[in-house]
Amino acid sequence: MSAAANLAPPGFGDVLAAAGRLAGVVRRTPLLEDPFLNEQAGRRLLVKAECLQRTGSFKFRGAWNRLSALQGEARTRGVVAFSSGNHAQGVAYAAKLQDMPAVIVMPKDAPAAKIGATRRYGAEVVLYDRRTEDRAAIARRFAEERGLTLVPPFDDPFVIAGQGTVGLEIADQALEAGVTEASVLVNCSGGGLASGVALALAERAPGLTVRTAEPEGFDDWARSLEAGAIRSNHAVGGSIQDALMSPSPGVLPFAIGRRAFGPGLAVSDEEALRAMAAAFARLKIVLEPGGAASLAAALFRREAIRGEAVIVVASGGNVDPAVFARALATGG
Amino acid sequence: MSAAANLAPPGFGDVLAAAGRLAGVVRRTPLLEDPFLNEQAGRRLLVKAECLQRTGSFKFRGAWNRLSALQGEARTRGVVAFSSGNHAQGVAYAAKLQDMPAVIVMPKDAPAAKIGATRRYGAEVVLYDRRTEDRAAIARRFAEERGLTLVPPFDDPFVIAGQGTVGLEIADQALEAGVTEASVLVNCSGGGLASGVALALAERAPGLTVRTAEPEGFDDWARSLEAGAIRSNHAVGGSIQDALMSPSPGVLPFAIGRRAFGPGLAVSDEEALRAMAAAFARLKIVLEPGGAASLAAALFRREAIRGEAVIVVASGGNVDPAVFARALATGG
Repeated sequence: MSAAANLAPPGFGDVLAAAGRLAGVVRRTPLLEDPFLNEQAGRRLLVKAECLQRTGSFKFRGAWNRLSALQGEARTRGVVAFSSGNHAQGVAYAAKLQDMPAVIVMPKDAPAAKIGATRRYGAEVVLYDRRTEDRAAIARRFAEERGLTLVPPFDDPFVIAGQGTVGLEIADQALEAGVTEASVLVNCSGGGLASGVALALAERAPGLTVRTAEPEGFDDWARSLEAGAIRSNHAVGGSIQDALMSPSPGVLPFAIGRRAFGPGLAVSDEEALRAMAAAFARLKIVLEPGGAASLAAALFRREAIRGEAVIVVASGGNVDPAVFARALATGG
Repeated sequence: MSAAANLAPPGFGDVLAAAGRLAGVVRRTPLLEDPFLNEQAGRRLLVKAECLQRTGSFKFRGAWNRLSALQGEARTRGVVAFSSGNHAQGVAYAAKLQDMPAVIVMPKDAPAAKIGATRRYGAEVVLYDRRTEDRAAIARRFAEERGLTLVPPFDDPFVIAGQGTVGLEIADQALEAGVTEASVLVNCSGGGLASGVALALAERAPGLTVRTAEPEGFDDWARSLEAGAIRSNHAVGGSIQDALMSPSPGVLPFAIGRRAFGPGLAVSDEEALRAMAAAFARLKIVLEPGGAASLAAALFRREAIRGEAVIVVASGGNVDPAVFARALATGG
């Protein structure tokens, strides 16, 4: 059982507090729309381009909020996190900007570009072997030995509230675009982003409802929401949507999502790649496979979506050139 | 001699009027910054991501402004333009949204995707043979026979004023970022964008100075600015930066630029491709070669630039997948 089971989920007030901490630091990413994508989706399709966030994904928001809330000694000692990708970069850069030491535990076989970027952001990167070592145990050891604060990727009230600021922006931007009723498709791994967004929308745009987007075969959220209880994935790897591979919904995100979310959606790797090509051609943004699942659902699961508009959160763009070239080769 | 020789260049008031017409229609594109690109540029580097504009380039602004200013009968009859790329799409989409007929004269050998997009925006596309036919003559024939208004790509006060709204946004966004002194590198073909931006900056951010960015071998602006009189390119084709191939500076843009612009910069095709790869990796935006010349100049001509900050206008992202794959292969 996660340590998060002992924590209360955050509320709307926490999202507002996060927005205050993030003001002037985090980028207000645009909500994009294209007439050809609207046609393809069979309705208006608004894309929240969170790939344009600092560090290339939404993860910087939650990391910044978590680190900002640390006080006194804890700030001096620093933070530790484990991640093979976007959370690593979000925590590393937030720590650098807040002048705090950061240790990031990353798998030895993570893409060299991601390890390199995390180091360039100033973090101490500790590599481990996925087959023989337990990353959580390594992180805990650093936490204990150096008194570092662990920054969890999603099961943390400050992290969820930070990601929720995406929802505050969507509420404003959808209204500006004249959209007050829509599904908001959010890529889901542990669910920190989706649950944070739901907290914001419930207060600011009650006609907008979060639905989860996941890789086929890794639809733990869809199955958990249907069952009304947390379910795990059977597979542990193998999807190209590497950012969406968490084994099961987070405890806190699920406590929020089980009431707030609509039914989950799942897309194939091929569909994610085609959505990346569509975003390239029509929106001129770079998405990673796991950042494109929600867009793929809007384009290729139209019959499973209701209403005249759909909003998707394009959550990240940290992708290797070779994978991007594969996406372009699909033709969209 | 161009018909523009008989027109007075626009002024700051025209840019403000354009901003009023464009409000709520044109996207306010973000000004992006990345710590690794700052390092590479040797100073702060702010990137105006105008590739995220509707139709994938800044051209929509000038087209919208020109069309909005038409009255009565002229609106009913419609417009005609010639272009192989971004101007075609800008005019076609602005005409569609304003419910006006549009004829776009395009070369037969333009990329199929660009011809297809222009048609999907609702324009009547007239194809011609670059080797044997004169596109301006064809456009004039349509203008006369159907009473269509010609929308020039740059030598027009309304078009220049529309592009100038990019400069109003840069002035605000640079100030928010704490930058009040910088060169603003603008990709230059006829110079509509660069001259419009200069009009806005002269009033709103006098510490920001426009400098032109062009392909090597097509540096008509650099040579014209140095000579104090309009000079033409010797070559007529062959650069991958296809959006920057106008044979010489526009009459109206040069009337503005000769006083307002700093010395011109030129970059190789290889450098433009590497800048595209850098924008992909660090900013998560898609640039076309001609949209990346200014970024290439900031990254690879650092010794020719002064000051602690530089701003570049990333003017367009309409690029074929095969060319983008070539850019990725450079490794940045």
